[in-house]
Amino acid sequence: MTYTVKAFQDLIDQLHRLPGIGPKSAERLAIFILNMDSEETNDLSQAIGTLHKRVRRCLVCGNLSDDDLCPVCLDSKRDHSIILVVEEIKDVLAIERAGSFHGLYHVLGGTIRLSSGLGPEKLNIEQLVDRVKEDKTKEIILATNLTHEGNITAMYIKRELEELPCLITRIASGIPIGTELEFADGVTLSESIKGRTTLKE
Amino acid sequence: MTYTVKAFQDLIDQLHRLPGIGPKSAERLAIFILNMDSEETNDLSQAIGTLHKRVRRCLVCGNLSDDDLCPVCLDSKRDHSIILVVEEIKDVLAIERAGSFHGLYHVLGGTIRLSSGLGPEKLNIEQLVDRVKEDKTKEIILATNLTHEGNITAMYIKRELEELPCLITRIASGIPIGTELEFADGVTLSESIKGRTTLKE
Repeated sequence: MTYTVKAFQDLIDQLHRLPGIGPKSAERLAIFILNMDSEETNDLSQAIGTLHKRVRRCLVCGNLSDDDLCPVCLDSKRDHSIILVVEEIKDVLAIERAGSFHGLYHVLGGTIRLSSGLGPEKLNIEQLVDRVKEDKTKEIILATNLTHEGNITAMYIKRELEELPCLITRIASGIPIGTELEFADGVTLSESIKGRTTLKE
Repeated sequence: MTYTVKAFQDLIDQLHRLPGIGPKSAERLAIFILNMDSEETNDLSQAIGTLHKRVRRCLVCGNLSDDDLCPVCLDSKRDHSIILVVEEIKDVLAIERAGSFHGLYHVLGGTIRLSSGLGPEKLNIEQLVDRVKEDKTKEIILATNLTHEGNITAMYIKRELEELPCLITRIASGIPIGTELEFADGVTLSESIKGRTTLKE
């Protein structure tokens, strides 16, 4: 644009900072917001502006919450003897969407990344160890990402929990469902063979 | 999700209403906004919430504006004898981005769509006629979309202006730059032949 309308450009700039929103998407969104009625823009503005005040972190597991404890930790129908450890809140959302896990969560808030000065003390790990001790947890499922950092973090947590009488497991790596072998990378293929399961003995 | 955190879900729902934002993008954006600092969320919230109050329409051409008149109409370096007529503000933005047009604009605010009860009186057409009369405009470029409705609207405007002593033109239709002929649709191909330009006489 050779000229700008400030309020409009401000909004485009703000939207452009969001992930996956390029300059053209930002402009398209800004035009859409311009055409919304005032009540709608107000609702959207409020939802963003009040988010930090309204959303809290569960004091036990670090998951999103409306209150001190999150709905998962408060749910007596879930299996409180299993804790699945993830890196981020988005992982909880993905697993809840899959809908097959019925235990509790523990959100680390990232991975160990020594190169960026992110040591284990920056993560929610000490609290996990205390939690396992107090709650006499039967199984810890390490579900950090299958990346270098995710693996390092999982191994670190395994060492921290080693003395405690609980089962420690790691989610399986392998070929994604619906994928053809020829498209899988070599490492995944090797892992899927190493981690093969018995169908008939 | 089998459970929801209300403030978080509210934001996801709000974002999901925006064009091109599916449920997964909405969730990803909501997580990003959650991780922004309070000043940043405040800026974004404000940019949306104050947009309607801050952005106005140019009283002359209907373009976005900070004030009574838009920066284009106020720019004495632009050619005030040519008016390019477009359907929507996003068309002005696209043409300004292209950067080769230096006249003025006129934003209709849509097209004639009799099937939806949108007659010419709902568009900014009367004002265009007055403008051409008063300003003694030399050329009107009809740049409504090359769609059925865009063409109908262009033809309607042409009739309305027919008595006035100004040149009326329509933007060219043809093969997009960088496109191979074999991928163009038949109508476009025919139009591009009909509208051929002379290279050497």
